Amino acid sequence: MIHTSKRSGVEPFHAMDVLALANKRREQGHPVISMAVGQPAHPAAPVVREAARRALEHGRIGYTDMLGIPALRQKIADHYQHRYDVAVEPERVAVTTGSSAGFNLAFLTLFDAGDRVAITRPGYPAYRNIMAMLGLEAVEIAVGAESGYTLSAEALEEAARDGGAISGVLLASPANPTGTVTSRKRLEALIDYCDANDIVFLSDEIYHGLSFADDETTALSLSESAVVINSFSKYYCMTGWRIGWMVLPDALVRPVERVGQSLYISAPELSQIAACAALDAIDDMERVKETYRQNADVLRERLPQIGFKIASPMDGAFYAYVDASRFTNDSMQFCRNMLTSINVAATPGHDFDPVDGHTTVRFSFAGSTPEMVEGLDRIEKWLT
Amino acid sequence: MIHTSKRSGVEPFHAMDVLALANKRREQGHPVISMAVGQPAHPAAPVVREAARRALEHGRIGYTDMLGIPALRQKIADHYQHRYDVAVEPERVAVTTGSSAGFNLAFLTLFDAGDRVAITRPGYPAYRNIMAMLGLEAVEIAVGAESGYTLSAEALEEAARDGGAISGVLLASPANPTGTVTSRKRLEALIDYCDANDIVFLSDEIYHGLSFADDETTALSLSESAVVINSFSKYYCMTGWRIGWMVLPDALVRPVERVGQSLYISAPELSQIAACAALDAIDDMERVKETYRQNADVLRERLPQIGFKIASPMDGAFYAYVDASRFTNDSMQFCRNMLTSINVAATPGHDFDPVDGHTTVRFSFAGSTPEMVEGLDRIEKWLT
Repeated sequence: MIHTSKRSGVEPFHAMDVLALANKRREQGHPVISMAVGQPAHPAAPVVREAARRALEHGRIGYTDMLGIPALRQKIADHYQHRYDVAVEPERVAVTTGSSAGFNLAFLTLFDAGDRVAITRPGYPAYRNIMAMLGLEAVEIAVGAESGYTLSAEALEEAARDGGAISGVLLASPANPTGTVTSRKRLEALIDYCDANDIVFLSDEIYHGLSFADDETTALSLSESAVVINSFSKYYCMTGWRIGWMVLPDALVRPVERVGQSLYISAPELSQIAACAALDAIDDMERVKETYRQNADVLRERLPQIGFKIASPMDGAFYAYVDASRFTNDSMQFCRNMLTSINVAATPGHDFDPVDGHTTVRFSFAGSTPEMVEGLDRIEKWLT
Repeated sequence: MIHTSKRSGVEPFHAMDVLALANKRREQGHPVISMAVGQPAHPAAPVVREAARRALEHGRIGYTDMLGIPALRQKIADHYQHRYDVAVEPERVAVTTGSSAGFNLAFLTLFDAGDRVAITRPGYPAYRNIMAMLGLEAVEIAVGAESGYTLSAEALEEAARDGGAISGVLLASPANPTGTVTSRKRLEALIDYCDANDIVFLSDEIYHGLSFADDETTALSLSESAVVINSFSKYYCMTGWRIGWMVLPDALVRPVERVGQSLYISAPELSQIAACAALDAIDDMERVKETYRQNADVLRERLPQIGFKIASPMDGAFYAYVDASRFTNDSMQFCRNMLTSINVAATPGHDFDPVDGHTTVRFSFAGSTPEMVEGLDRIEKWLT
């Protein structure tokens, strides 16, 4: 008789449940179109795969330093100089097994059980779920049209006043699922507020490179104490390689190393070697980004025609977050029906917003344009 | 100003610290011999690297179902039938990012903060360290010559009587660092005790395939409620690929999937594809194992000649755990000196045994025989 833990009762990551069901249907021969998970249809750049292929020849793929191979840490540090004109010492870079490990390591090294950490609602579900497992209190702050779909110092102040002091804030820009790009000015105000109030600012920058409107600002250009989490999954099309990184304040480097040694040992070495080449493949990735821009245009036009009001800025990332209230009051059931009826996978809003997400749906447009169009055709026919 | 969490004060994984220092010295041009981490010098089998190479051609390396690609889950299930004559449904297999993820997922889904889980002392340090981070109480039970270097129902009973009920027991066989193979009979008695006392039995089988004496018994052949953790790192020489698996009681499959979705998303897909081929490469791996057997013979003869009493059975895995009290009362300092003086890396016993490990050292013999011999020559010269 197995007793499971209380914390194992955590909410599923519904996008992953949709992925599993979609994979199963695909194996059964159904023509599934994936607009559920945030996963580029394009493979990693040829130079990336070539670097991996070369490493396979000698084949000694081993444990690395927990913080990553020196070549990759240096490449990432250089990237901040080239792209953002910010000096980062390679010693502050920790290579991680995807941003998933980055979040877990940040939470474990910064917070203890009971600490309150602010996030947006809607937002990336794994934030909330990992916090729940670690005994942290996720302070979900609703963002919408009136707040520019992002956080403000005022909203943080209010949350602290109502529920007690906040130890950290985790914000993604560009954001999932809304695509919101937080402006440099707003980011600066937020970080100033955090620095003044002894709150750690965690900046999820995994969709950097994928903005269509404003310029992206790394939190590193505004504060030395910000914790940055990034990944090769999205812009660099390397989801399944499970490789990402953190940039840490000096004082956090050794704690992250210490915790990571026992919890992860190190990130996959083949992916670390391949990732070194990824940072040189910007031209390839800009071409891929162009397809997202085209997909965004298609969705921005057709989703409202079908009856989905677009409920987010779509300034970055590759998601359309829509109001599906014309069709459903139960987004979980709606998405399940859509997948089993017309083989189109999308993610129920409930994943991103446990309060208001029962009427919203997220469509990922990281696939190919013809696939998006076929998906929309099927949805239109199904709903009308 | 960054405040780190209390739990970030966890003990380092000293073998990883030694690895980082050894890597640094190697980069500086020092001729380092690695006998610190448990890492085969041999690469993965040619068919494994070939499978990865083929997958790189199309290059769509993506997220998979959290529980793993169906082909690998099926292969692993079949492996239990072929090797142990135990029927395991593929639905009970969860593919993980190394056994590191397996331990974390098992602890998170089975135990809540405050739960007491028994392990051996000496034992794998990450058990204790991960438990500390998750708020579990590691109940360390000393094992030595008198207890056959393994646990018994009596020792568990005593620990429960002295410190309160135990929720789980985690035992490795073959064990790290002692190489102990727990006999089928003792394993059966332990599991019977656990089943009768509502204690979960977690079986760390990552050194299976690497026994030199007794036959290995999988806990799955003795109990349906045992949780098995395994990995491709050791026998299959795939450390840096970060790929392992769990076999779960039915009731634990969905909780592990749910927790893993948010915490890991999925194991690296390239490694999953490659691992499918690994289970067919037994002939290659048996040849590699033969070199470990030779290395063991060399160490068993020469370490005592130098003055290190061998303090463990060495029946499996690839470690010699020795009494270094003739040379040191501070194994941490001793290992640091050995690395900086003669460029031989070994792991201080303190990593495996915080109480008595100040006089012990672990030598890994997963490297090549000439390297072992050169390492021993240097140590002999250094100490005499």
